[in-house]
Amino acid sequence: MYTPGPLTTSLPVKQAMMVDLGSRDQRFLNVIKEVQSGLLDLAGVSEQEGYECVLMQGSGTFAVESVIGSVVPRDNGKLLILSNGAYGDRMKSMCEIMNIDHDFIRYSDREVPVAADAAARVTEDKSITHVATIHHETTTGALNPMSEIGRALRDARPDVTYIVDSMSAFGAYPVNMKEDNVSYLVSSANKCIEGVPGFAFALCEKDNLVSTEGSARSLSLDLYGQWKGIQSNGQFRFTPPTHSLLAFRQALEEHTQEGGSQGRLDRYEANFRILRDGMKEMGFNLYLEDSIQGAIISTFLVPDDPKFDFQEFYQRLSNLGAVIYPGKLTEADSLRIGSIGRLFERDMHFVLRSVRQVLDEMDVKLPVKQMG
Amino acid sequence: MYTPGPLTTSLPVKQAMMVDLGSRDQRFLNVIKEVQSGLLDLAGVSEQEGYECVLMQGSGTFAVESVIGSVVPRDNGKLLILSNGAYGDRMKSMCEIMNIDHDFIRYSDREVPVAADAAARVTEDKSITHVATIHHETTTGALNPMSEIGRALRDARPDVTYIVDSMSAFGAYPVNMKEDNVSYLVSSANKCIEGVPGFAFALCEKDNLVSTEGSARSLSLDLYGQWKGIQSNGQFRFTPPTHSLLAFRQALEEHTQEGGSQGRLDRYEANFRILRDGMKEMGFNLYLEDSIQGAIISTFLVPDDPKFDFQEFYQRLSNLGAVIYPGKLTEADSLRIGSIGRLFERDMHFVLRSVRQVLDEMDVKLPVKQMG
Repeated sequence: MYTPGPLTTSLPVKQAMMVDLGSRDQRFLNVIKEVQSGLLDLAGVSEQEGYECVLMQGSGTFAVESVIGSVVPRDNGKLLILSNGAYGDRMKSMCEIMNIDHDFIRYSDREVPVAADAAARVTEDKSITHVATIHHETTTGALNPMSEIGRALRDARPDVTYIVDSMSAFGAYPVNMKEDNVSYLVSSANKCIEGVPGFAFALCEKDNLVSTEGSARSLSLDLYGQWKGIQSNGQFRFTPPTHSLLAFRQALEEHTQEGGSQGRLDRYEANFRILRDGMKEMGFNLYLEDSIQGAIISTFLVPDDPKFDFQEFYQRLSNLGAVIYPGKLTEADSLRIGSIGRLFERDMHFVLRSVRQVLDEMDVKLPVKQMG
Repeated sequence: MYTPGPLTTSLPVKQAMMVDLGSRDQRFLNVIKEVQSGLLDLAGVSEQEGYECVLMQGSGTFAVESVIGSVVPRDNGKLLILSNGAYGDRMKSMCEIMNIDHDFIRYSDREVPVAADAAARVTEDKSITHVATIHHETTTGALNPMSEIGRALRDARPDVTYIVDSMSAFGAYPVNMKEDNVSYLVSSANKCIEGVPGFAFALCEKDNLVSTEGSARSLSLDLYGQWKGIQSNGQFRFTPPTHSLLAFRQALEEHTQEGGSQGRLDRYEANFRILRDGMKEMGFNLYLEDSIQGAIISTFLVPDDPKFDFQEFYQRLSNLGAVIYPGKLTEADSLRIGSIGRLFERDMHFVLRSVRQVLDEMDVKLPVKQMG
């Protein structure tokens, strides 16, 4: 699978799910602890340094909502969102539904948020208490300057709380929450750490988290409540996806074996280069400029030829065993191919061969159209 | 495992998770459809009759909150909750957090809600728009008269919307949503249908569901939004737990093979009788009266003997391979033993033998104390 998750996982990750454990079983409670400290470690922090890991059932969006809905105060809280795609926009939808006061800077899908803009806005508007952005915009594959933004915020307004949705970047692109001034970092089991879906997590600055008690707008998605629950007896408040957690522990182990985030990023970058070069050779160009393109997922415009039908293209590729992802742009028809998951160079050559074969079968002419 | 879920699942259920499928893959979309229609079937209804199945990521509580937070109108909505345990009380907590106007009738843990009380209350208070209760209170193992309540509500106030949390009953105790006047019935993957945790579901009367558009208090837990998303393109709005869904399809197949809900209930009842009789022989008495005791999980008071320490008892049983459940009563120390999951007569004899062995090892004297 060449998707941004659920993605191809290793056989041992799946095999780890062949056991049923009770949610209060000591063996399972040990898994929770291992996972929590492993995740903090990946973010360059630890409990000793004042950071906590909160695991949340559901998809990544559930964890993002649990942060936004739980940490922005009901009174006098205001969230500035920096968006350049669907995932930043989703944060805005959350604020609208939960009646959270917010401000919104929208860049185009081909741009990335600018640290100086964030600094200027929070300097102008002192009522802003929180700032949120996306680390890697899966909409396009853009890598946003989340460190720069965090540092600029610290210089401009050290009292502002910085929230980062690092869904499809965490575990590949290195992060140091402390150095990057990140109070809440959210990601999911089934992205760069290569686990199966079922839960997501928020890494939290403990002092900040503790100060949010009682602010949650949901019982299930109460971030502080979820933390406090596990803190009190080591157990989830509500039934956890035990099998996903078992798979994830194995995934974390494989992540370490590969050399941590840097080792994983090296493989993803090698995958990406093969993909980019091979697609370019066929006439497909990356939608984004090289300077902001990440190694996680790549957006290509679809061929101009009227014979190209995405559904047919997708289905034929899928029949060959290469599952790709539709595009998510509003302004142009596009397709996306991921380079994450248990994928290696041979897999990237396989998807390239498959794309070429399907285009031939469909008699589609290249090159694809160029963006203005 | 002798727990109310996550529970012991069959080998084929776990084996079904050994495949990675993309969340937009046609094979996965077919699994969603099969699961949806299988679940409606278990509730005695179908899409043709105007019912819909909404799958929700997370634990059962997430699905309960998605119903309560999405279907009770923001203006002029008022929910009457009938509670006789922790799960009814949890609905009250949800209302408090989400600022949902509500009324609350609390029975003791040893009683069940009374249909006539519900009818009287909604007749008195015409501002009540919704009524919710629990089908099987896992706190104690009490089986509540959810059908009677639904029918009484139809007679008293046909305009009232009836919501049932059937978490640990659905798939064993037969339900007919139409006959029982249930507009929303919630349950989870990892209870009587014997799947693995990762998602839950709400079965919904379509006309009612459609009328709730825009009422949700959460993006992730927006019931209508979740339904509309899958309705529009067959896909989840946000990453689904693909492996849990695959396991669940297999679990549904095994449920059918066992003779549906009735066949499953027969096995659970046989399990329960062995457990009850064996525990009684040792001196343990059921906490509940026989008339309200279900066959799902049984609460026993702990022995009076000061040598009895629950943690030690639990750990020793666990070491023997028999994982039970702590009690959840506030008024007395208790323990719970479940009879659901892939458990058969031999497993019930095994837990009984293990309990006897551990009591001997701990030199605990029986009988246990009696409730007044």
